[in-house]
Amino acid sequence: MTDKTSNQMWGGRFAAGPDAIMEAINASIGFDKRMAAQDIAGSRAHAAMLAAQGIISDSDASAIREGLLTVLSEIEGGTFAFSTALEDIHMNVEARLKDLIGDPAGRLHTGRSRNDQVATDFRLWVRDQLDAAEAGLLALMRALVAQAEAGADWVMPGFTHLQTAQPVTWGHHMLAYVEMFSRDLSRVRDARARMNECPLGAAALAGTGFPIDRHMTAGALGFDRPMANSLDAVSARDFAIEFLSVASISAMHLSRFAEELVIWSSAQFRFVTLSDRFSTGSSIMPQKKNPDAAELIRAKVGRIFGANVALMMVMKGLPLAYSKDMQEDKEQVFDAADNWMLALAAMEGMVRDMTANVPALEAAASAGFSTATDLADWLVRETGLPFRQAHHVTGALVARAEAKGCDLPELTLAEMQAEHAAITGAVFDVLGVHNSVASRVSYGGTAPARVREQVARWKEVLG
Amino acid sequence: MTDKTSNQMWGGRFAAGPDAIMEAINASIGFDKRMAAQDIAGSRAHAAMLAAQGIISDSDASAIREGLLTVLSEIEGGTFAFSTALEDIHMNVEARLKDLIGDPAGRLHTGRSRNDQVATDFRLWVRDQLDAAEAGLLALMRALVAQAEAGADWVMPGFTHLQTAQPVTWGHHMLAYVEMFSRDLSRVRDARARMNECPLGAAALAGTGFPIDRHMTAGALGFDRPMANSLDAVSARDFAIEFLSVASISAMHLSRFAEELVIWSSAQFRFVTLSDRFSTGSSIMPQKKNPDAAELIRAKVGRIFGANVALMMVMKGLPLAYSKDMQEDKEQVFDAADNWMLALAAMEGMVRDMTANVPALEAAASAGFSTATDLADWLVRETGLPFRQAHHVTGALVARAEAKGCDLPELTLAEMQAEHAAITGAVFDVLGVHNSVASRVSYGGTAPARVREQVARWKEVLG
Amino acid sequence: MTDKTSNQMWGGRFAAGPDAIMEAINASIGFDKRMAAQDIAGSRAHAAMLAAQGIISDSDASAIREGLLTVLSEIEGGTFAFSTALEDIHMNVEARLKDLIGDPAGRLHTGRSRNDQVATDFRLWVRDQLDAAEAGLLALMRALVAQAEAGADWVMPGFTHLQTAQPVTWGHHMLAYVEMFSRDLSRVRDARARMNECPLGAAALAGTGFPIDRHMTAGALGFDRPMANSLDAVSARDFAIEFLSVASISAMHLSRFAEELVIWSSAQFRFVTLSDRFSTGSSIMPQKKNPDAAELIRAKVGRIFGANVALMMVMKGLPLAYSKDMQEDKEQVFDAADNWMLALAAMEGMVRDMTANVPALEAAASAGFSTATDLADWLVRETGLPFRQAHHVTGALVARAEAKGCDLPELTLAEMQAEHAAITGAVFDVLGVHNSVASRVSYGGTAPARVREQVARWKEVLG
Amino acid sequence: MTDKTSNQMWGGRFAAGPDAIMEAINASIGFDKRMAAQDIAGSRAHAAMLAAQGIISDSDASAIREGLLTVLSEIEGGTFAFSTALEDIHMNVEARLKDLIGDPAGRLHTGRSRNDQVATDFRLWVRDQLDAAEAGLLALMRALVAQAEAGADWVMPGFTHLQTAQPVTWGHHMLAYVEMFSRDLSRVRDARARMNECPLGAAALAGTGFPIDRHMTAGALGFDRPMANSLDAVSARDFAIEFLSVASISAMHLSRFAEELVIWSSAQFRFVTLSDRFSTGSSIMPQKKNPDAAELIRAKVGRIFGANVALMMVMKGLPLAYSKDMQEDKEQVFDAADNWMLALAAMEGMVRDMTANVPALEAAASAGFSTATDLADWLVRETGLPFRQAHHVTGALVARAEAKGCDLPELTLAEMQAEHAAITGAVFDVLGVHNSVASRVSYGGTAPARVREQVARWKEVLG
Repeated sequence: MTDKTSNQMWGGRFAAGPDAIMEAINASIGFDKRMAAQDIAGSRAHAAMLAAQGIISDSDASAIREGLLTVLSEIEGGTFAFSTALEDIHMNVEARLKDLIGDPAGRLHTGRSRNDQVATDFRLWVRDQLDAAEAGLLALMRALVAQAEAGADWVMPGFTHLQTAQPVTWGHHMLAYVEMFSRDLSRVRDARARMNECPLGAAALAGTGFPIDRHMTAGALGFDRPMANSLDAVSARDFAIEFLSVASISAMHLSRFAEELVIWSSAQFRFVTLSDRFSTGSSIMPQKKNPDAAELIRAKVGRIFGANVALMMVMKGLPLAYSKDMQEDKEQVFDAADNWMLALAAMEGMVRDMTANVPALEAAASAGFSTATDLADWLVRETGLPFRQAHHVTGALVARAEAKGCDLPELTLAEMQAEHAAITGAVFDVLGVHNSVASRVSYGGTAPARVREQVARWKEVLG
Repeated sequence: MTDKTSNQMWGGRFAAGPDAIMEAINASIGFDKRMAAQDIAGSRAHAAMLAAQGIISDSDASAIREGLLTVLSEIEGGTFAFSTALEDIHMNVEARLKDLIGDPAGRLHTGRSRNDQVATDFRLWVRDQLDAAEAGLLALMRALVAQAEAGADWVMPGFTHLQTAQPVTWGHHMLAYVEMFSRDLSRVRDARARMNECPLGAAALAGTGFPIDRHMTAGALGFDRPMANSLDAVSARDFAIEFLSVASISAMHLSRFAEELVIWSSAQFRFVTLSDRFSTGSSIMPQKKNPDAAELIRAKVGRIFGANVALMMVMKGLPLAYSKDMQEDKEQVFDAADNWMLALAAMEGMVRDMTANVPALEAAASAGFSTATDLADWLVRETGLPFRQAHHVTGALVARAEAKGCDLPELTLAEMQAEHAAITGAVFDVLGVHNSVASRVSYGGTAPARVREQVARWKEVLG
Repeated sequence: MTDKTSNQMWGGRFAAGPDAIMEAINASIGFDKRMAAQDIAGSRAHAAMLAAQGIISDSDASAIREGLLTVLSEIEGGTFAFSTALEDIHMNVEARLKDLIGDPAGRLHTGRSRNDQVATDFRLWVRDQLDAAEAGLLALMRALVAQAEAGADWVMPGFTHLQTAQPVTWGHHMLAYVEMFSRDLSRVRDARARMNECPLGAAALAGTGFPIDRHMTAGALGFDRPMANSLDAVSARDFAIEFLSVASISAMHLSRFAEELVIWSSAQFRFVTLSDRFSTGSSIMPQKKNPDAAELIRAKVGRIFGANVALMMVMKGLPLAYSKDMQEDKEQVFDAADNWMLALAAMEGMVRDMTANVPALEAAASAGFSTATDLADWLVRETGLPFRQAHHVTGALVARAEAKGCDLPELTLAEMQAEHAAITGAVFDVLGVHNSVASRVSYGGTAPARVREQVARWKEVLG
Repeated sequence: MTDKTSNQMWGGRFAAGPDAIMEAINASIGFDKRMAAQDIAGSRAHAAMLAAQGIISDSDASAIREGLLTVLSEIEGGTFAFSTALEDIHMNVEARLKDLIGDPAGRLHTGRSRNDQVATDFRLWVRDQLDAAEAGLLALMRALVAQAEAGADWVMPGFTHLQTAQPVTWGHHMLAYVEMFSRDLSRVRDARARMNECPLGAAALAGTGFPIDRHMTAGALGFDRPMANSLDAVSARDFAIEFLSVASISAMHLSRFAEELVIWSSAQFRFVTLSDRFSTGSSIMPQKKNPDAAELIRAKVGRIFGANVALMMVMKGLPLAYSKDMQEDKEQVFDAADNWMLALAAMEGMVRDMTANVPALEAAASAGFSTATDLADWLVRETGLPFRQAHHVTGALVARAEAKGCDLPELTLAEMQAEHAAITGAVFDVLGVHNSVASRVSYGGTAPARVREQVARWKEVLG
């Protein structure tokens, strides 16, 4: 919502009658001005192509292309006067171009229409966001890999149901998120490749009789090819919905990590300390540090996925080709993109700044007989006990330790053998949280050796 | 998204580092300034209560209350300098109050916190929107009743599956939407009654030891009572989600009518002509009139319900009491409220302006043997044929009419009696679309007599 | 998905060609058989009315009404043979009725159609669920009030941002949820009152020429009145969406409490112990108790709100009157209702069974200078210091306590007076978590006295 | 909802107390039995690997693998007795295996846990659905290409805002959907490639100390590689959400075409006739043909996207690794997959069966001066008039034609030259709908020549 509209709303909304209502609901300049750079790039490519095909003169094309650069610099410099009466960014730019260069401006719109023009602008804008998301994801992954490298052998609880299940390493936990964000990145790249086709030249919906060269404009704008069907070119918004889906899944991943950071920052967990930069404090409770950024990141998935829902609902049941409903696409995508980029940047900052509380992590990992499954696995592996019997023996040993008030490694070998004679001193090699994690060397396992291999792999990938 | 943030985004976003990121994600002044009037009303009520209870002096209270009026006039006049460093509307107002009146400003925040303050502001804001929605719905219902009154006996097709099923009256169709919007209104009123409780005095989350009078502030702000649990008071956002649910259902109703207007405006239907004010034309195709406003209204349900999804997802799984995630509540509600009000106003304008094409409606209603069920019903009612046999006879008569190339009323009595001897001339009283609609006199039926009764009822209700 | 369909899917789906596809997509008997009792109740009321109005004979009506009871008992007894070829519950019941009583069965469908019949059935079904939800909410509220009464003065941390902010009482926290669920209940009752109108007699869409008495059938089925517009009667689904919205908000409240129970059950918090009945354990880790029920309840909001989204999207942009799209309404509502009822019952069971760990709660509440705000408030209240200065003094005292390694109540009066001379021994009355909560006596505050008043109020309300 | 649960619900739900409630909310066998084939395939691969690595004996592995085939044949034959007490498909299969082969069954679960087992089963199931979707999309695309080939030069209106804008060809319109569904297919393939990694061997969450070979099991199950992080392997559900996103976008495309088919089938449009197989008729109104399948397809996007919302909300904010909430993933994906496949099959059937009403299409295309833009473009192209002036001249010619009561091609050359002297007889080559479409030869344009090229391309691609 632009400030202008906000002000209109402020006092007696719509008192001015139908014309004010129609302007409020119809004009898009309040938001589509964010596509000014894309609009101008598209028009410049179009003008060059028109001249190359002999549809307009070279001198007209030059005037147009130069004039458009002037318009762009006015917009970027903040001196451009946007007009709601001119409805949208396309008309605002064209009108200013006419002021600047006169009649040749009128030849720019040859062989295109606002339908393919807006579709082109919007694709260019979304493509830029996919590139920004790639950068944001890569930066976040690098920050996570740095944490993983530092803590490849720090032991912490591996939770299921938020109950300690088995010890894992800090590095392994960090790398789990690297995997998730790498799939987000993969989705970003797939989406970019799929949407990188150029609608320009589809005209209103049917193509045109002008001898345009759509491959030339597509190439000039960095598209892989022109879209192959003009009706589809002006009607399709799946690229925008795919953008929102990809962003939503990524925001879901961010929300999971953010939740962990909030819980880990509680006085009860104290697994991490977030930096002051991403927290707020209390003037009188010095130890209180509110994880504001983590909470806000956690919330962003709502906003971003809300946009996904909104655009899905807008597009549901829309006949071809262009319907005005589609004008609702941009604000959703703009808002979701802004908030995704912001959440990625904030998470990267938090990850870089946060400090793991290594002793607290290890103490938590050690509680609750967390290596009982290691003991059971050892019994299967080394003594050949079937899985279910090994569980039975382990349960008895845990009960014995509990009665004695100690953890499993504090039991004596004799106490162990009292429950199962085949146990040997080698069992102690898998008990204790450090032994436990070191033993889990299966591919993808939490052993520090495995973590360091994955860190090395990711450092190579991430450069 | 504020212009400030947009500009930050424009070039090298977040290049300025962590502090810029934290400010971008954390500050709410960009949007919560829309609650300035509510914030000041709440503070003025609070100050008056503090003085009445002897917690602050009368002179301090007077200074605070006068100062706040000055702040309000500065904001409404557009001269107030909002500061992002001051984060939110509460701190912006309080800081300016201190500039204006000095030390007494520091006593305003006694016995409250930002948690109950923002909850109060936001409830007041939402309550205002419920009142605005009531006005908008009533205006739309009046416009529909006026259409119903004008066309109580205009005949049009009643569709199922977008296929003509039976003739109905224009007035009856309009009144169907009056019923829907009246239930929307009923939901608005229920929501308002339920949410009209005052959080102020819940303080941070636990209540306060100051001898405050929460009933006094609640009353001064038009609330029915103070909220009965301080933790709930600062944690609850169901009132906001209920607002969004109510708005979404109403927007769904708007989308249904908007869809009809788009279809009815097509060259194939030509049931209505929308006014120029709510359409756009073509400079070279004079008969082309795009139903832009109807399309945009149809789309608004996406945006409004997207906000519902967003806030539901934000609130999912949030522990008590306040979490920063909740700061995401306002922009969703603001945007949904703006667009709901706009859609109601635009629909009202369209309904007032639109012209039914009565001959086209009647012609469409008459096509396709649309009174066949009237004939079947007549056979059941007057000759005692069981329902299924009556259908069989009717099918035979329709086949006969089709073979003859005429509609049912054009068959002769003899032709009718050839299929079923008990048919009498009275049958013609129910054939033909005017007879058909006139005969459907059951309560709630489409007969003009029934429609006029409902119109009279609604005119009395709507004043 | 019915078993039948599952089986069809299992091997070579749709290999049987178009007819199998159409049957799979079109038939509703797989799910709408759940409305059998409602369908039969509606038909019995309709038959009685037809006889009372002289439209059918008394003996036919008696045969129909008796026959329908037989059908019902067959269905409830599990001996009824449902047929997909008969498409839906209405046709299945009517066909069986004809088997049982012969020709009079054919008179039942006089003056109605499947459109108003299904709308009536579905309203009756949803109304039953609203009644079940009322019972489920009341039971849950009673369980929470019992917990609140038991722990009216147990002290626990009041969190913001999952950081300890101020001490509160267990009873107060429980009552916060009573407030939330009471608003859910209020929404249930409003929804029930609003939807309790009878569509029967609207016929296909236009009403009927038969001299039916819609007030009689409405009354017989417990509706407050017949719906006033026949087009609306067969087209409206806002009652179903409102049901889903109300359920979704309630499920959101459940998810918040479920999240707390999961966190509170962690080894790090240990605030509560859930009963074995609502947890699962580990065969070898005796202290591990997974809060399965809480996690599943937390998840249910997704499913229930997913249904809300689904039906909103189905209804978006549907023209009047009946469209086949609407057949998608039932499975969503059925599934959401089942899961809401299940989640309410499971939560009630967990709340009844759970045990608060009172010492752990109190210890957590005492940590982190949680009564610092009480000290600051005392300074304002008793010494007249402005709020901001009081905060400064409090900060200095906290720093002093931290340096000394003690909590605020362990500071001596002399140490306090060294920071601010006006402090007296009375200050110790507000320090310590028990004093803190006892002091917060404002209406709705956490003081045990206030909590007991609210418990008494709720016990009266809940009976 | 299984029948069993339905029956439980029927009378006095949950009257049986907490145990019944816990069973109802906790057990998954009611739905996860659909993954039986995948579960058994996974276990067979695991057993073979255990033997190859020497972890179990070859004879045990053989017994297990043979026994599992027996279990599978029992399940496929419908003779398997599922037990709710055994909770899920994994325990049901394992228990039966033990019945069949005795002790060796107990060695199967070595080096894995239910967490990685269910993740593997579910990925296999989703992968099968992606393959089914590929087949469904290809079949639908072939049906559309066949329609496009038949009607490469049939002229129909190209709509914007459901108003005739310019003539297009039927073939071009069909190919627009081929493009959309081809992008859906591209998304299916990307999703399949991304998710085709094997979780098996991640064990509970940390990997295992057994010398398993995860590459071997991954290969045996057709996965490209094992997942690289064990925590991620058991925690990730983005592959399921991506499946739902891809399905939702595809369902959105289906809804758009379904909406067109509903509108095109109306008496007012009569653009197409749907086959009886995908419609329902009226016993007494012979011309009425309800497009039931199209309406139901239009509605499916709600259900499928509702599942997307549900799972997004379930996963929001879930900490690692496994939480019971995730058990809610399957029913959503199962239902969405079933309905997507059904909608694809029904749409393919409808497209194959439908008949275009070529004269009605052409008549509609010709109305409303739909070639006015062709005239304007000709003026620009051939006479060098600037775009805006060409529009002015065209408007004058349209006004002249309207006054004369004819279409543009019926104006004489003299009448044309009266408005603009430079017009020549060549102008008639672009007027008239056939000339219009023939002239739009730009790449991707609607000209029959272009359409035929695209048809040829697609036939090659689709085989």
